[in-house]
Amino acid sequence: MKAHTEYLTFNTKKHREYINITEEVNAVVEHSKINEGMVLVSAMHITAGVYVNDAEDGLIKDIDDWLEKLAPFNPNYRHHRTGETNGDAHLKSLLMHHEVLVPITNGKLDFGPWQQIYYAEFDGQRRKRVIIKVMGE
Amino acid sequence: MKAHTEYLTFNTKKHREYINITEEVNAVVEHSKINEGMVLVSAMHITAGVYVNDAEDGLIKDIDDWLEKLAPFNPNYRHHRTGETNGDAHLKSLLMHHEVLVPITNGKLDFGPWQQIYYAEFDGQRRKRVIIKVMGE
Amino acid sequence: MKAHTEYLTFNTKKHREYINITEEVNAVVEHSKINEGMVLVSAMHITAGVYVNDAEDGLIKDIDDWLEKLAPFNPNYRHHRTGETNGDAHLKSLLMHHEVLVPITNGKLDFGPWQQIYYAEFDGQRRKRVIIKVMGE
Repeated sequence: MKAHTEYLTFNTKKHREYINITEEVNAVVEHSKINEGMVLVSAMHITAGVYVNDAEDGLIKDIDDWLEKLAPFNPNYRHHRTGETNGDAHLKSLLMHHEVLVPITNGKLDFGPWQQIYYAEFDGQRRKRVIIKVMGE
Repeated sequence: MKAHTEYLTFNTKKHREYINITEEVNAVVEHSKINEGMVLVSAMHITAGVYVNDAEDGLIKDIDDWLEKLAPFNPNYRHHRTGETNGDAHLKSLLMHHEVLVPITNGKLDFGPWQQIYYAEFDGQRRKRVIIKVMGE
Repeated sequence: MKAHTEYLTFNTKKHREYINITEEVNAVVEHSKINEGMVLVSAMHITAGVYVNDAEDGLIKDIDDWLEKLAPFNPNYRHHRTGETNGDAHLKSLLMHHEVLVPITNGKLDFGPWQQIYYAEFDGQRRKRVIIKVMGE
């Protein structure tokens, strides 16, 4: 069994941002020389997410509106008594989840026709990281 | 380390459908001859989900009602400007998630008493696939 | 490849409870002697969750309020025709998810600065289990 690990760093211009990282994950899988296995893509922060869905700008805006509806910004979260203002970003992260595990077959991400990997930033404008770990043979 | 991969194909009669695939996943684990490891069960489409919960018809209807409440059909999603009408199916897929990872111990799914694996179709009546990849020894 | 499996048992005093299990998972990773790999932490029940987020009491109460808002207790779930009263606990489990996969690098959980692993009990006061399975080398 081999394992190969790399990290991505983000510092978004906007407070919330959705970034397609499929090419970056593909590159890490290539570097790993692993043909059969899985790659874990996981946010290292509790106010960010990683998900698989469509690379379509309208849908990304729909997702952002939907997250704001289900996990809205609100000045009154108890968490804000610590001095933070990002309670909504924690809830958005829980809703979208912080990790995906993608199968690798014949050295490639074994994806359907429209699957793309996104990093979802919910509390940006600061340094954040994602871990990409490949395991297999 | 060994890896073993199979695919399931679905073409549901209804637009939304919830299909128990536990037996199919069990069969793939048997084919793999893997005793200790994990099996990834992952939808290859962005309008479907895979989840673990109860095989109880009332609950499945409750889940369907709940998804329609939190991620409703709506003609006005921005995504529909592409000609699609399935914005809600993308959001339902994100809410339920498209993958589960199940532990394998002594050659069996290491599940609690009520855990069952479901494929959740949110935009059916067309060909869809699920990948099942087993890794271990 | 090595695999190492342990189980945690819970019997919470309250109906809903959020328990930080990061130290327990760390201990299992140490027992495994695995330096490079991944650890799966997965609830073995369909009315409980496992998630990664902040060890901050205010936020935990925010999460509990938010779950009750999005997946409320309600006497009228169809699932209750079976004699159960825990329909909301199933939906809360689906929303939070029942599993996380954590990368292991140099024998440690490869986490960002604030990431902690929680067991979320949504239908407690009875015996429940979590499986922790480490895979790697």
